[in-house]
Amino acid sequence: MLKSISFHKPYFNMQALPPKKNRPLEHARLSTVKLPSGEVATPVFMPVGTQATVKGILPRDLSDVIGASIILGNTYHLNLRPGIEVIREAGGLARFMNWDGPVLTDSGGFQVFSLAKLRKLSDEGVRFNSHIDGCEVFLGPKEAIEIQDALKSDIAMCLDECPPAEATENEIAQAVDRSTNWAKSCKEAWGETDAVSEGRKLFGIVQGGRFPDLRKRSAEELQEIGFSGYAIGGVSVGESEEEMLEQVFTTVDFLPRELPCYVMGVGTPTQLLKMVGFGIDMFDCVLPSRAARHGTAYTSSGSINIRNEKFKFDFSPLDQETDCFASQNFTRSYIRHLFMAKESLGGVLLTLHNLRFFVKLMEDARKQIKVGNYSNWATDWIERYNLGSKQ
Amino acid sequence: MLKSISFHKPYFNMQALPPKKNRPLEHARLSTVKLPSGEVATPVFMPVGTQATVKGILPRDLSDVIGASIILGNTYHLNLRPGIEVIREAGGLARFMNWDGPVLTDSGGFQVFSLAKLRKLSDEGVRFNSHIDGCEVFLGPKEAIEIQDALKSDIAMCLDECPPAEATENEIAQAVDRSTNWAKSCKEAWGETDAVSEGRKLFGIVQGGRFPDLRKRSAEELQEIGFSGYAIGGVSVGESEEEMLEQVFTTVDFLPRELPCYVMGVGTPTQLLKMVGFGIDMFDCVLPSRAARHGTAYTSSGSINIRNEKFKFDFSPLDQETDCFASQNFTRSYIRHLFMAKESLGGVLLTLHNLRFFVKLMEDARKQIKVGNYSNWATDWIERYNLGSKQ
Repeated sequence: MLKSISFHKPYFNMQALPPKKNRPLEHARLSTVKLPSGEVATPVFMPVGTQATVKGILPRDLSDVIGASIILGNTYHLNLRPGIEVIREAGGLARFMNWDGPVLTDSGGFQVFSLAKLRKLSDEGVRFNSHIDGCEVFLGPKEAIEIQDALKSDIAMCLDECPPAEATENEIAQAVDRSTNWAKSCKEAWGETDAVSEGRKLFGIVQGGRFPDLRKRSAEELQEIGFSGYAIGGVSVGESEEEMLEQVFTTVDFLPRELPCYVMGVGTPTQLLKMVGFGIDMFDCVLPSRAARHGTAYTSSGSINIRNEKFKFDFSPLDQETDCFASQNFTRSYIRHLFMAKESLGGVLLTLHNLRFFVKLMEDARKQIKVGNYSNWATDWIERYNLGSKQ
Repeated sequence: MLKSISFHKPYFNMQALPPKKNRPLEHARLSTVKLPSGEVATPVFMPVGTQATVKGILPRDLSDVIGASIILGNTYHLNLRPGIEVIREAGGLARFMNWDGPVLTDSGGFQVFSLAKLRKLSDEGVRFNSHIDGCEVFLGPKEAIEIQDALKSDIAMCLDECPPAEATENEIAQAVDRSTNWAKSCKEAWGETDAVSEGRKLFGIVQGGRFPDLRKRSAEELQEIGFSGYAIGGVSVGESEEEMLEQVFTTVDFLPRELPCYVMGVGTPTQLLKMVGFGIDMFDCVLPSRAARHGTAYTSSGSINIRNEKFKFDFSPLDQETDCFASQNFTRSYIRHLFMAKESLGGVLLTLHNLRFFVKLMEDARKQIKVGNYSNWATDWIERYNLGSKQ
């Protein structure tokens, strides 16, 4: 079942690539991505460290408790605060926040569209007003690269335009054109930095929304420019779960199998397992940490709301089947008390728990891919999880 | 210089008791308090875990990073939320919150007077409305003991009446009477629990405000009842720093030297060093953790406000001279960023730092007492700290 394959890109070493079949969960694959700050085994889930911190979590616990091998930083936020000069002088994002591992940063484009005010979009880039103090900022492809170079990102992302799910075909086609042009400029700007010689990588982002032809064109144009990996963008922007999965399943076929494939900003545990089955290697999402701060804990038999009265005298762990620090050291009753008393430690414990849950899910997925059992295991896992969630 | 002394109370083992002199800082002493959950070297600073959590801090970091040997829990808060039945069923406060060490709890009285609404005070106790949901609660000496027994406190405190600094002599005299009567009832109730056979201890609290005669009477009446240790209460209730220190300095003379002496709810680093010099063994205070959440860091050359613009590019540690985790792993620039971006990790890092600062201050004090150099060392330390604070 296992097949070791050599590629011309030694930084991406794929250890298992099953033959492509029509059954959706049969395309899971195992690889190692070699980056300047460390190796990343994929499929991988990347915790989101928006403002140079995974909210409430010490970097030490990101590695020791959660087992994260790579984290994501948000260019938009870091550029506004503390400002790129601070992070450049600190020696990059990882050194600034004392994270001893690789960092992937987005281009900032997504937050410009979701957070900033008074945007003015042109072919050159986007001029916007900061959501913090209203000051005017310009972000074009060159700026996106300049910032990510200062952040010393192990993986930088091209600036792209990400239209909402309900955009017209014409609008999405224009976003593809613009994203391709920006991707060209990004690649050029990237070549002028020390990033290439330092082994840092630049990924392209496929747009095209719900239109397979546009997805195909976007993917082909990006590959013509040539990147070290490709992301599927423009998902989870308002479409249904089914449409989202359909788009990922379709788009992955347009991308080279010998390079990492990353789906941005998703998703739930079951969505992740499905997309791993489609052949996706990398994920990031705020879901586990955001849900944690609102009192939701993910368990192997569905998610629970820890505020529920029924946990008042429940001295069992959050999840019986986990190696998670929070479960091994604290009871549901105690964590519920922290939430009821509005104590910040409650959110911290659930964040530790949920992030460990997502990271371990990918560890388990890798084990199952290795022994050729991914499809069966993932199918059972999803069924059990969905059953628990309905209870 | 060192003198090893044996006492009839083996749980309190004093290792150094210098001869009493008139110079204030010459009375510092070294001891070990043996409690069911562990030994506590004194002088000691106890972090405050109001609602079964030292705000934002994992119990693991309380011991490993901060080096705390004992913490304080608040009976008033825990009784209201999660409720005493939950903690009793969990096996006590330490087990509930997964703290592997001794716990001291206050009686709840202080918060009844500072937080609760619609209080009705009588000789039996105090009837009040919860500040959380307004429901009516009665707290008398028996209730205070019952709750603290359920919390499995290593050290429980008698219920006392703590009048404000500006109370009249007559009001304070009445509070002393009431506190003595409640102390009798507490001792009786304590005797009916398993606490004594389990080696848990009950402390009396000296009231008397700014009146030495009343302090003396309160101390004598409590010693007639007999407790395992004595606290000086009714300080830091509105009086000046000088008056507070004066009251402590006076009151310590009325207490037995062969038992632990604890000053409740104070103070600043310099106040602590002065009171150690007076012969005080135990302290608790929310100051280091509360100040941390507001951006104040204690350093050996005074306190700093981390939000200050001048720290924007300051990549040095909070304090050069500390073994603190936060200083060894993060820069002032980074912690300032966390505060400016309203990221909770900023408060956590300063809490770790400040609590370590207070705990280490007591460790250093113990070292200096041991070598007979406390008075000189503390005088120099206070001078340097005050000089830095003025800059």
